[in-house]
Amino acid sequence: MEQTNAAASSAKPIRCRAAVSRAAGQPLEMEEVEVAPPRAHEVRIKIICTSLCHTDITFWRMEGLHPSIFGHEAVGVVESVGEHVREVAVGDTVVPVFTAQCSECPDCLSDRSNICSKLPDVHGFMPRDGTTRFSSASTGEPIRHFLSVSSFVQYTVVDVSHVVKLDANFPPAMACLLSCGISTGVGAAWKVAAVEPGSSVAVFGLGAVGLAVAQGARMRGATRIIGVDLNPDKFDVGKRLGITDFINPNDTGGKTVSEVIKEMTGGGGADYCFECIGSASVMAEAFQSSRMGWGKTILLGVIGSMAPIGIPPQDLLPGRSVIGSLFGGIKPKNDIPMLAQKYLDKELELEEFITHEMGFEEINRAFELLTQGKSIRCIIWMDGAKVIDNGE
Amino acid sequence: MEQTNAAASSAKPIRCRAAVSRAAGQPLEMEEVEVAPPRAHEVRIKIICTSLCHTDITFWRMEGLHPSIFGHEAVGVVESVGEHVREVAVGDTVVPVFTAQCSECPDCLSDRSNICSKLPDVHGFMPRDGTTRFSSASTGEPIRHFLSVSSFVQYTVVDVSHVVKLDANFPPAMACLLSCGISTGVGAAWKVAAVEPGSSVAVFGLGAVGLAVAQGARMRGATRIIGVDLNPDKFDVGKRLGITDFINPNDTGGKTVSEVIKEMTGGGGADYCFECIGSASVMAEAFQSSRMGWGKTILLGVIGSMAPIGIPPQDLLPGRSVIGSLFGGIKPKNDIPMLAQKYLDKELELEEFITHEMGFEEINRAFELLTQGKSIRCIIWMDGAKVIDNGE
Repeated sequence: MEQTNAAASSAKPIRCRAAVSRAAGQPLEMEEVEVAPPRAHEVRIKIICTSLCHTDITFWRMEGLHPSIFGHEAVGVVESVGEHVREVAVGDTVVPVFTAQCSECPDCLSDRSNICSKLPDVHGFMPRDGTTRFSSASTGEPIRHFLSVSSFVQYTVVDVSHVVKLDANFPPAMACLLSCGISTGVGAAWKVAAVEPGSSVAVFGLGAVGLAVAQGARMRGATRIIGVDLNPDKFDVGKRLGITDFINPNDTGGKTVSEVIKEMTGGGGADYCFECIGSASVMAEAFQSSRMGWGKTILLGVIGSMAPIGIPPQDLLPGRSVIGSLFGGIKPKNDIPMLAQKYLDKELELEEFITHEMGFEEINRAFELLTQGKSIRCIIWMDGAKVIDNGE
Repeated sequence: MEQTNAAASSAKPIRCRAAVSRAAGQPLEMEEVEVAPPRAHEVRIKIICTSLCHTDITFWRMEGLHPSIFGHEAVGVVESVGEHVREVAVGDTVVPVFTAQCSECPDCLSDRSNICSKLPDVHGFMPRDGTTRFSSASTGEPIRHFLSVSSFVQYTVVDVSHVVKLDANFPPAMACLLSCGISTGVGAAWKVAAVEPGSSVAVFGLGAVGLAVAQGARMRGATRIIGVDLNPDKFDVGKRLGITDFINPNDTGGKTVSEVIKEMTGGGGADYCFECIGSASVMAEAFQSSRMGWGKTILLGVIGSMAPIGIPPQDLLPGRSVIGSLFGGIKPKNDIPMLAQKYLDKELELEEFITHEMGFEEINRAFELLTQGKSIRCIIWMDGAKVIDNGE
């Protein structure tokens, strides 16, 4: 239907269902919203499915960002395009992503960066003109975007720099996973840390990102992959994704986690430590678990506060480093199709990450499952049809 | 004389002159000390000349480390050797260095580390047995070592893992410089950061280490090298060593240094920022001056306190990193002879770093010159003969 109506619909607003966040930490409200047509360099996408990431939860809990349409892991089909859009056409299957790739700026042209310097995120609005395409269908009140994606809605508008084209036959749920969390974790191990064969790795926080780090580390040949989480339920899936040892910080007999990791690694500490939670105190512990001489601590967790990292510079001097990783160093338009191919070639495991599936109207239950640590990834199908539930 | 008496002297203590630090921050006292013979794996060295480094000053000011013989930049001649010493012989010219290279541990065997894990520094004592070879000649009171070197004395005892053999014809003053500060700076730019051609670099603190970073960055092809120091006198010598732009933090018209560096580098910040002071606030400013996407902040400065680095993790995430550098990643036995050859080949400039020379008895004046920012490196000749003074 989108394809035949493309020319017409591109000129008209669309009314559709959205899960709108109206107050910090409160259940989303299912509402009818109006989605304006895409402007120049923009694409309107009919979302097929979306998934919930901890970063949605972090921002959903913050004051001052409402009303918003959250969601930034998704896949969909291009419904209409604005002026100057050549890269994708109506009917293309695309993954919208939270980082831009303009393909023109010094960062996009360099292998060293995945942070587009031409189109930084304009918090809550479209990146080029700082306005919104969403409004309440009943009151006309503007509604904010989120991370340049906003996928908890049937139709969204995304800048073409934030869109990656995928083969239409690629499984949509797997495409969702690649649009943020799994790529973030795999990329951190593979591109940012460039884990070496035979390495020891410690992963702090076994959510989807941490589990993806473990898998990326295994793909790179790490032999010891230590998972750290307060929730022992994560160990079973962790083992299947490459974790060889598990530490529950509540069950160390009074030792610190870094002491346990040093013992496990023969006294030195891990070669690579990944913080996938976004806690300043866990960052400090991850750092202390890293080996003198060459230990790298990679920070992936998005943190709410601006508290500094609790690392004394003296402890860094003996050859240690702390490395920030946003989206795992992934350049979306280059690397997501490559990871998709690795999935098809059975080098990259994705199914294990999906613990729940449900229809759009049930999205608040997805929030509950994730905040309670019961899900890794929950796929939310916009048409409500393909619903599987693992029974939680 | 040392050579002919080697066998005898190796069995006997030597009485000689030392500059002993007896109280935090107080002038050194010229005393007669007794230097015990070298034990197994140890070498007794007659110091030719030594130089003063800021790290001596940092520890000299600390309580609880006295009486000590400071000094860790030096060159000398092996006077006697203990059991099991095969690597050097009596009469060899050697540079004692503060980091060990046992050549056996996983770190010494790896290209990634320069931090020997077999023989860590035993603060104030010999690394293998934790005792001292120094005592007061008048009272017998033990005197502490410093950084496994202790060069403010005519004869010192050093573990063979801390000794690098050099050609006897190599100029002693230049050998002194390579034993710590200059190698630390050049190595940080060359080995730790691996500065790329065409890069922009900011150097915070233009002491010997910072100026050596500038030179290392120039050798690696950096095109913009910004020096930051409160003392504008450093700019002349800085220019000769590769600095292209100078920022005095007191003279920025109210802007922060990071704002000025961002302007100088086209808005982004420097590719590489080096902190060569050891100040938590300067570390934070150096970090903020580093470019998003790939900016690296390298910490070289030894800091007295355990205050954490003031870096919010959120600012690290977009592809930035903070890297600790001890001795510039230099593996002493491999890299110091190589840097010495670079000096002989006129690829590495060393003369510019020497601003003063004096006799051993005047050592307290060297402390004054360095703390007042008037000297870069002062060569202290133990025989008092080869004295040049630039007139300060």
